[in-house]
Amino acid sequence: MKIKVIESVLKDNDAVAQTNRSTMNAAGLLSLNITSAPGSGKTMLLEKTITALGPDAPCAVLVGDLQTSRDAQRLAGCGAATVQINTGRGCHLSAAQISAGLGSVDLSQIAYLFIENVGNMVCPAGFDLGEHKRIAMLSVPEGDDKVAKYPTLFQPADLIILNKIDLAELLEFDVEQVRADLARINTRAPLLLLSVRTGEGMEKWFEWLDACRTDTTGRKD
Amino acid sequence: MKIKVIESVLKDNDAVAQTNRSTMNAAGLLSLNITSAPGSGKTMLLEKTITALGPDAPCAVLVGDLQTSRDAQRLAGCGAATVQINTGRGCHLSAAQISAGLGSVDLSQIAYLFIENVGNMVCPAGFDLGEHKRIAMLSVPEGDDKVAKYPTLFQPADLIILNKIDLAELLEFDVEQVRADLARINTRAPLLLLSVRTGEGMEKWFEWLDACRTDTTGRKD
Repeated sequence: MKIKVIESVLKDNDAVAQTNRSTMNAAGLLSLNITSAPGSGKTMLLEKTITALGPDAPCAVLVGDLQTSRDAQRLAGCGAATVQINTGRGCHLSAAQISAGLGSVDLSQIAYLFIENVGNMVCPAGFDLGEHKRIAMLSVPEGDDKVAKYPTLFQPADLIILNKIDLAELLEFDVEQVRADLARINTRAPLLLLSVRTGEGMEKWFEWLDACRTDTTGRKD
Repeated sequence: MKIKVIESVLKDNDAVAQTNRSTMNAAGLLSLNITSAPGSGKTMLLEKTITALGPDAPCAVLVGDLQTSRDAQRLAGCGAATVQINTGRGCHLSAAQISAGLGSVDLSQIAYLFIENVGNMVCPAGFDLGEHKRIAMLSVPEGDDKVAKYPTLFQPADLIILNKIDLAELLEFDVEQVRADLARINTRAPLLLLSVRTGEGMEKWFEWLDACRTDTTGRKD
């Protein structure tokens, strides 16, 4: 009985996700759903990305949080069209919330649409939002055992970012453990080692974004 | 309709939690439900705590993870009676899982029963497991905005631990921001600043544990 309810919720979600995907395809933009634990550095990555891309590649962000509009304020300050989605007690974004968010952005003006999911390594993994690509982010202070412990987050990802790599030595973080665990569950997604704070590795991120946009939309700046 | 199902799940959970609480009261132990994001340092806190308490205050741990028994192996290595609860895709522990776990520990021998919840700042907050006290843990690398963003985790806590305090200066973490946000939602719980890794502040943790056990069980070593 309980399982039936969950299946029905997921089925409804997937139908809306499909509509979102069509909407975003028609607009010719690339959409990315970024998932991670709280505090991995999603918002700071987007701040630096939006600023670096500048007016030639305008960005929009749909940002999910239980409470507050702090992230949206930070991102709007960088020049992105930003929609804050407060989920209250909700532990993930749903396709319906994204659908509502898309309605308040002029998509024809946007090159990249970032979806910053609720900070949570479990629940967002199960919900398709209609994104073109999914990014799973991990940060060094969280520990090198997290890929093995949260495989549902890392399995469906198209890109895996390991952030705060500048702290790896101090915190005795074993990158090879992460590589070994990923080799068991996801050999498709590249692993990017970077530090949003220091800038290390950021050029690879921009290369990936650019190639991904060209592949998905056929557009190139 | 959906709300009714959720209410019913929570009502069922609360009834089992009440039974768990009675079981643990009868055993004369103190039980603590520790909640945090992934990688805040729950397991390392328990490793050091179990080792320091030693055979005079025997510990048991029920540890929740989606996958792997890594945490249970680490904790059993410290001498605690340990039960690993794998939740699969489940984003929190439930009272029924705790009830099953309690059945496989000789509670009469235990002074402290720790419940290490699934690493998740959202979902575990809503589920009473029958614990005597709830601990919410935050770590410095997650950022000083997390109390405001995840109030449902910090509101019901009896103790709030800010771990990895040794990284505060490097990461420009504002402890006063955390204090100010806590002042708005929870003025009941003390805030402990500590570093499990360096040992800073750990004596306050042991004092709190000891006082809490005496208050709850009437026992004192």
